[in-house]
Amino acid sequence: MNDQVYSPTRTLMGPGPSDVHPRVLQAMASPVIGHLDPVFLQIMNGTMDMLRKVFGTENQLTVPMSGTGSSGMETLFVNLIEPGDKVVIGVNGLFGQRMVDVAARVGAEVIQVTAPWGQPLDPAEIEQALKQHGQVKAVGVVHAETSTGVRQPLEPIGELAHRYGALFLVDAVTSLGGIPVEVDRVGIDACYSGTQKCLSVPPGLSPVTFNQEAVKVLGERKGIVQSWYLDLTMIQRYWGAERFYHHTAPISMIYALREGLALILEEGLEQVYARHRLNGEALQAGLIGMGLKLLVDEQYRLPELTSVLVPEEVQDVEVRKRLLQLYNIEIGGGLGELKGKIWRVGLMGHTCRRRNVLTFLSALEDILIQLGYRTENGSGIREALRVYQAAGGVTI
Amino acid sequence: MNDQVYSPTRTLMGPGPSDVHPRVLQAMASPVIGHLDPVFLQIMNGTMDMLRKVFGTENQLTVPMSGTGSSGMETLFVNLIEPGDKVVIGVNGLFGQRMVDVAARVGAEVIQVTAPWGQPLDPAEIEQALKQHGQVKAVGVVHAETSTGVRQPLEPIGELAHRYGALFLVDAVTSLGGIPVEVDRVGIDACYSGTQKCLSVPPGLSPVTFNQEAVKVLGERKGIVQSWYLDLTMIQRYWGAERFYHHTAPISMIYALREGLALILEEGLEQVYARHRLNGEALQAGLIGMGLKLLVDEQYRLPELTSVLVPEEVQDVEVRKRLLQLYNIEIGGGLGELKGKIWRVGLMGHTCRRRNVLTFLSALEDILIQLGYRTENGSGIREALRVYQAAGGVTI
Repeated sequence: MNDQVYSPTRTLMGPGPSDVHPRVLQAMASPVIGHLDPVFLQIMNGTMDMLRKVFGTENQLTVPMSGTGSSGMETLFVNLIEPGDKVVIGVNGLFGQRMVDVAARVGAEVIQVTAPWGQPLDPAEIEQALKQHGQVKAVGVVHAETSTGVRQPLEPIGELAHRYGALFLVDAVTSLGGIPVEVDRVGIDACYSGTQKCLSVPPGLSPVTFNQEAVKVLGERKGIVQSWYLDLTMIQRYWGAERFYHHTAPISMIYALREGLALILEEGLEQVYARHRLNGEALQAGLIGMGLKLLVDEQYRLPELTSVLVPEEVQDVEVRKRLLQLYNIEIGGGLGELKGKIWRVGLMGHTCRRRNVLTFLSALEDILIQLGYRTENGSGIREALRVYQAAGGVTI
Repeated sequence: MNDQVYSPTRTLMGPGPSDVHPRVLQAMASPVIGHLDPVFLQIMNGTMDMLRKVFGTENQLTVPMSGTGSSGMETLFVNLIEPGDKVVIGVNGLFGQRMVDVAARVGAEVIQVTAPWGQPLDPAEIEQALKQHGQVKAVGVVHAETSTGVRQPLEPIGELAHRYGALFLVDAVTSLGGIPVEVDRVGIDACYSGTQKCLSVPPGLSPVTFNQEAVKVLGERKGIVQSWYLDLTMIQRYWGAERFYHHTAPISMIYALREGLALILEEGLEQVYARHRLNGEALQAGLIGMGLKLLVDEQYRLPELTSVLVPEEVQDVEVRKRLLQLYNIEIGGGLGELKGKIWRVGLMGHTCRRRNVLTFLSALEDILIQLGYRTENGSGIREALRVYQAAGGVTI
């Protein structure tokens, strides 16, 4: 049955999945035990504790949903929103659009506040939407828009949501573990993420966290949650003291998440953020040094995901193909209206290492020169090294 | 961060998860690659091909959903059923009940046909329900009821469903890879399973298969699918020729499924079924030899899951606790109305080996004698060995 197709050792520098830490891979190979085994219940508790630390929250209801990041998005909307509820959603990329789609399927009346792809949302426009439409149930935004690389400042929007009596819902898929999310400090009511970005864990789980206010809304629903699989009124009884069986937990993926979280906490959250900051800065300096342009203004750039404008003289697909074939490096192309126009270069979690920054800049220079783009060998590396040297002697 | 909690090496003889084959555990530790990597697309194709063989189908739309078995159940109902549609559901255990719950959340008008827990459904009653209610959209039944260990003969019900113009939907979570499912031969229109039973893969994916008739119903929907995450109109574009991005596939779990399926096909489907039959028969003979009673009549017993009535003189929980603590063996208790009344002993996939049958029978005898149940040392093993000897010299 062996079809001789093996996984090559790529360097995953796209928008996710990112490189998985070897300890995480090993954890997945641990023996499977039952989802109600007393040892597994301890493992669940430990995982929830670590998740709370990384989310920056004391929320009791902080659990990994048994699906990828998009299932976390759906979890928030099916549990907190009921047909006819008004929700304001910020749309400046594909994942904001997806939120609109998911909310509409729950029967929400969706009010979109848009910004051009590559720019952040303007809180003043969110406020205008809240003023104009009375009784908005929730405001949803994407913290780190994976389709563009924009970092959305959360606090002004959270403050507005609460001032107008709405829940504040945040997509932290590409931010959690890469930049601070700080659920409690920022005042996020419900938040979801994914494992395959800055947590260095394979795709497959979606950590979510609900605060007391969100749990209250969940408890006061008029109707039943439309999804049985994602129904937190039942799932919280399995992850809570009762341990009531809902569905069979994905044991091996939870082992993986637990190890990924342990790695982050061993390194220290502040150090993890500093590592992402420095490598992101070096990469961005290197790209600019090569004469390339970045999509996002400096103040809204994510360190863990950089969008580069594809120069007119080169072909998007050809560059990505050569990176993969010649260097085993995967980067992402553009999505939606940015298809063919940008490259998305990820430095998330275990991918976020100096060796990957330097290899990638060298590889891209090589390929761009092959394809006739006018740059100078070493111009990217030179700028990246300047950034590292300015930071002093660090091991990252 | 190491909390010193490690997974013990259990023998998983409950209703799932079952023991995972070492080659499957190793496969999960393979390097993660991107969900749009050309190599991963080959792996997806190979996985779909093998899934079709194990399901016994030529159905193009045969894919693993990115969630556990229950997400597969929800996938069938959210995609095929629309609000107001009538569905007939057979209920003779917890998973039939769950199907009712899931269908109702989609807005179906559910007609339940029941049988006592531990007995199969009567096709005559299904026919009566179909006659009584015009225009039923679908008939749903559970092939192997995990809460009772009952095998439901499918053909008479499938034939009735089609005679009355309804789709035939089947839960094959605990049957796939343990007893023949034969989707095409039986005339199943849509079917779902789980990885953590007879496929010897950890929990986390739900293989589903839809035939042309089901795909037609999907294509002719009046409204949008209420779940974005489980929307097959989009997901089939990722698993199909287009490779259109929907959500990030759970790469490592797909590696695991692929290896589990390869193991089954290497052994040969017929040999896999024969192994389950023989070990199941030996276990059941052993249990009866010890003086225990089984819940299900012989002709409807599953080889891979046996329900044993807890003798009045012993305590359910104490026996299971000692099996786990003294022997590292997990079995299941009863669910719902059978809570405290039965033990569920699984022999699924990689768990289904003679050494586990013999160890379990010895362990249970030991513990029952400890607890004052009147049996004779060796009485279970004696009967089990008779079954193996009658089968001739086999290596299982």
